Amino acid sequence: MRVLILAAGLGKRMKSKYPKVMHKIMGKELINWVIDTAKKLNPSKIGVVLGHKSEMVKEILPSDVEIFYQNKQLGTGHAVMSAKEFITDEDVLILYGDTPLITENTLKKLIDKHKNTNADATILTAILDNPTGYGRIIKNEKGEFINIVEEADTTDDQKKIKEVNSGFVVFKGSKLLEGLLKIKPNNNQGEYYLTDVPKYLDNVETYILEDFSESLGINNRIQLAEAEKIMKEKTLKNLMLNGVTIIDPDTTYISPEVKIGQDTIIHPMTFIFGKTEIGEDCEIGPMTRVINCKIGDNVKILRSECEEATIENNVSVGPYSRLRTGTVLKNNVKIGNFVETKKTIINKNTKAQHLTYLGDAEIGEDTNIGAGTITCNYDGKNKHKTYIGNRVFVGSNSALVAPLKIDDDSLIGAGSTITQNIPKGALALGRAKQITKEEWVFKKREKGE
Amino acid sequence: MRVLILAAGLGKRMKSKYPKVMHKIMGKELINWVIDTAKKLNPSKIGVVLGHKSEMVKEILPSDVEIFYQNKQLGTGHAVMSAKEFITDEDVLILYGDTPLITENTLKKLIDKHKNTNADATILTAILDNPTGYGRIIKNEKGEFINIVEEADTTDDQKKIKEVNSGFVVFKGSKLLEGLLKIKPNNNQGEYYLTDVPKYLDNVETYILEDFSESLGINNRIQLAEAEKIMKEKTLKNLMLNGVTIIDPDTTYISPEVKIGQDTIIHPMTFIFGKTEIGEDCEIGPMTRVINCKIGDNVKILRSECEEATIENNVSVGPYSRLRTGTVLKNNVKIGNFVETKKTIINKNTKAQHLTYLGDAEIGEDTNIGAGTITCNYDGKNKHKTYIGNRVFVGSNSALVAPLKIDDDSLIGAGSTITQNIPKGALALGRAKQITKEEWVFKKREKGE
Amino acid sequence: MRVLILAAGLGKRMKSKYPKVMHKIMGKELINWVIDTAKKLNPSKIGVVLGHKSEMVKEILPSDVEIFYQNKQLGTGHAVMSAKEFITDEDVLILYGDTPLITENTLKKLIDKHKNTNADATILTAILDNPTGYGRIIKNEKGEFINIVEEADTTDDQKKIKEVNSGFVVFKGSKLLEGLLKIKPNNNQGEYYLTDVPKYLDNVETYILEDFSESLGINNRIQLAEAEKIMKEKTLKNLMLNGVTIIDPDTTYISPEVKIGQDTIIHPMTFIFGKTEIGEDCEIGPMTRVINCKIGDNVKILRSECEEATIENNVSVGPYSRLRTGTVLKNNVKIGNFVETKKTIINKNTKAQHLTYLGDAEIGEDTNIGAGTITCNYDGKNKHKTYIGNRVFVGSNSALVAPLKIDDDSLIGAGSTITQNIPKGALALGRAKQITKEEWVFKKREKGE
Repeated sequence: MRVLILAAGLGKRMKSKYPKVMHKIMGKELINWVIDTAKKLNPSKIGVVLGHKSEMVKEILPSDVEIFYQNKQLGTGHAVMSAKEFITDEDVLILYGDTPLITENTLKKLIDKHKNTNADATILTAILDNPTGYGRIIKNEKGEFINIVEEADTTDDQKKIKEVNSGFVVFKGSKLLEGLLKIKPNNNQGEYYLTDVPKYLDNVETYILEDFSESLGINNRIQLAEAEKIMKEKTLKNLMLNGVTIIDPDTTYISPEVKIGQDTIIHPMTFIFGKTEIGEDCEIGPMTRVINCKIGDNVKILRSECEEATIENNVSVGPYSRLRTGTVLKNNVKIGNFVETKKTIINKNTKAQHLTYLGDAEIGEDTNIGAGTITCNYDGKNKHKTYIGNRVFVGSNSALVAPLKIDDDSLIGAGSTITQNIPKGALALGRAKQITKEEWVFKKREKGE
Repeated sequence: MRVLILAAGLGKRMKSKYPKVMHKIMGKELINWVIDTAKKLNPSKIGVVLGHKSEMVKEILPSDVEIFYQNKQLGTGHAVMSAKEFITDEDVLILYGDTPLITENTLKKLIDKHKNTNADATILTAILDNPTGYGRIIKNEKGEFINIVEEADTTDDQKKIKEVNSGFVVFKGSKLLEGLLKIKPNNNQGEYYLTDVPKYLDNVETYILEDFSESLGINNRIQLAEAEKIMKEKTLKNLMLNGVTIIDPDTTYISPEVKIGQDTIIHPMTFIFGKTEIGEDCEIGPMTRVINCKIGDNVKILRSECEEATIENNVSVGPYSRLRTGTVLKNNVKIGNFVETKKTIINKNTKAQHLTYLGDAEIGEDTNIGAGTITCNYDGKNKHKTYIGNRVFVGSNSALVAPLKIDDDSLIGAGSTITQNIPKGALALGRAKQITKEEWVFKKREKGE
Repeated sequence: MRVLILAAGLGKRMKSKYPKVMHKIMGKELINWVIDTAKKLNPSKIGVVLGHKSEMVKEILPSDVEIFYQNKQLGTGHAVMSAKEFITDEDVLILYGDTPLITENTLKKLIDKHKNTNADATILTAILDNPTGYGRIIKNEKGEFINIVEEADTTDDQKKIKEVNSGFVVFKGSKLLEGLLKIKPNNNQGEYYLTDVPKYLDNVETYILEDFSESLGINNRIQLAEAEKIMKEKTLKNLMLNGVTIIDPDTTYISPEVKIGQDTIIHPMTFIFGKTEIGEDCEIGPMTRVINCKIGDNVKILRSECEEATIENNVSVGPYSRLRTGTVLKNNVKIGNFVETKKTIINKNTKAQHLTYLGDAEIGEDTNIGAGTITCNYDGKNKHKTYIGNRVFVGSNSALVAPLKIDDDSLIGAGSTITQNIPKGALALGRAKQITKEEWVFKKREKGE
């Protein structure tokens, strides 16, 4: 089977410099949601028909899709014709670049029915209480498909038909090619409609979609927000039914790819995106963002940002901390508030709890990083590394000028600027002696200063 | 035309020390929403009738409204009578201090109809599926207005009437005065109702309100929250239809005055208030507050606070940063995490990325402000300024004691306290030499300390 | 009266390692919500029937409840039989560990009716438009109770009955014991149903529940989220009607125990939990968490975390600050951004506004804590205290090495590390002199470094 995705439209109602299919939900472009769903069907090939601003769309497509161009917007039938060479004897499933909610599950059922019935075409339809506005599926008394009639062309009797066309359809490739030759632009728009093809075929089946929201097409930014909400709600419902507590689904944003273990609690105002995996018994949030992280069991992340980080078990982070790319926190690490880490490995039982910046660092076990510690990793030209050993005590308000090696069991006095390596078990101080000038303030005051 | 706003009520159900019209939605008092809408109609004068705790309300009113006092609460008719001297031959539009959702657009249409029909009064009405509780508009067979009947006084036939009174009405001034003399307090409350005036006039027209929520009056704090939600939803819908992506309208708070350019994305949990203007292709939020800021194109503000700041193009801010009043960020500036700026100008390409406080500072181009830099701008009595030139490298954990001038191309070593000006191209250090006492920790341990 | 709470179920659909009644809403376990409601009825005793993983549940129960064990899951009747010795001549109210929304008010009315009618049993029922799925209350023509019929066993006529069983019921103890001996496991599940008891009693009354949501039982995590939402909405509605402004009830989380004064405004994305009391005219939020705090009047807390803190009047906190356990802020204190306090008392008019950590400190009045100040309270083994007097000026970027006493009117120069006590009125400096090497950068550049 091949999948052909129609994505040539501009989407005028988006009021945008960018073509419609480039807009995003859950951080991924509409068209890429459709392509990723298509890939799950294991098609032999995926084709995409581009039109408006095709160069922009092309840049965000994966390299393994074939691209076709529809130079004039003459309808969906014309769009498919623009990809004529893509259509062979194989079955062709038609998807749309602006319908990101269609699921693998539904499409598989559609294709199964198509194969089992050996149909020329199988149309995904839906039964609507209020079918107004949709193309109706006309069938004869035996229930056999006759044709699809657009709302504008329906008779009063046809208006009562509740089975409507979703747009999704799978064809025998050869039959699709035959049908395309027969359709004509006999309509107000003067366009070639793909919906006119099935009436020229002998054996057309329909498969009824259970959840009509899967066929939602996005035409403006209100619908974009709606689609995001629907996707999010389905994802959260699924997580909840599988043992994840979501305190408030209305203010929780999790993308479908994310994996979360049993008995983990997601607090409100939390975003979990990308290829994130979270273990069991964690508490994430409130007000936390986790993107592309691998997180173990029993981890607490409160009011923090985590991106491309790896976190083992029993770690606590936050509030107000930021784990940036390349952060690795081993078992039992504690990160407190106003702490930033970047390309930094922190080994087990180590703590960095207050107002700290750790960049390009490797830190041992059982070490204490005092409040206000800063790794001075940048000299204006290059970044340098800081090594801190096991059981080190870094006093508060220390500046550690990299490249630097601070060996095991050493101790740095508070307020020090450290520029030289510290051997094992040494005490290092880099601060001035205190000078106290007694009565100084009172004398100043007497002088009226 | 003149506008008279009735705002004498206490609003007992608000359970408040403050009169009802002082409560706020979207950060502005109810009465000031109404006054601001009235001003858009360019009336010759605006009058406000105050009563309960009038001194408190007076303080929040603009200086260009005339204030009248209703000393006893004897009904809306009595309230208008309290402003007798305000009513002349000009038309008078009656508004209410507790109905902040009424729009300029609706009022203009009401006034247009009033003028075009040369009516004595034109009443803003609404058609409701369930009119229970509202005053009904009684008309004769020709569709001519007869009178308004309050719910309590309706006959069974009148109860079925779906056209109701919104309360908003425009009068010919002279006719209003005539009518006011005729109304009587023949009702349970013993009050003079303004709604009794039209029945004494010859030529009364009605104009039907499309969106009934515009007439929502606020009587308790549940309705206050509802009004805020309605205002917010309309604002967001309008932005979306004009090319702004709002990821989640349910958790986004934008006030109607805000201007946002095409293809800007507003992430959830974001507040944009006041006279803020935002350019195109920005990403604002999540978890960001922007108040009275001017922001250019392609700016990213993540999880930050911005108040009274000016930001040019291609700037990125956050997460966890705070731009306070008087912050100016020129093109390509980068502000990272845990950074506070106040009365500070930062020129193009300069970076301040970690744990930094910049107050009363002016910073040049291509300069790097190291992690943990603090401008010591306050000496306990006065604030002083810090000038930092172009291409300066401020090492991490530096304290810059103002007043101070750090000239172009200079370099400050990490951990320095800088108290004297630094000339062009100089290196400045203000830190103690490191002392390392080998084996110190091990010896301590042996001693059992 | 005694209360018996049935809590033996596993809750398979929770998909959890923990028994159902241990799951939480608003931070408290389901069973503890029920126990706390039961306690408000002043019963002579409270009993709990445990089953699955009873050892885990036992640990979270208060010590004053009697625990019984149901070793096999043979139905609600069997569960009550497992607590046979708990049932005496006293009335027994049956509650459920998974129905946290039932209110004291409803239960009191149920018990009142039970007593006033001298009934053998009084059942809490509800009238539902759509009763499908619920056990129906069968009554005779006189309106006298006959029995309860489960949905599966209803005739077509019985299906139309809209009065349903909520499960809550109060019995005369002796009658309950009599009835329990009579019920049989004649059903598909082979279980002993408590709902079969009333039909064996002579005088059974019903009391109709006004708000059916109170009887919501939680069987999966979707229902858990729903229960949290219902509890939150009721709490917020109640606060609003009593004079608290909640800007957006949809994104505000307040638990029922919290007390808030009139004219306080709660901004969106705010969590207020535990035994928190907040005075009048405060502004809390947005994005603030307050847990177990005592807060006075006219306090502003913006975008901050507060736990176990005491705050007097006219204090402002935030954004981005964190008050930890044992923080006391007296009148007029100002805490700014990126400030953490722990076990710290700050007296009136004192300010700590930027990038500061105050731990184990006691700070006087009218003192200024400069930006970047850090109390070095931990030496790797013990925590030590820092005393700072009145009218002290702590210069920016100072490290204060505890134990330390900084006396009144003293002044610490910026960038100092303070290790020795400072007497009254003294100036203390602990920083290196600045060295400036002119042209250093230019020379380096010439050398191409």
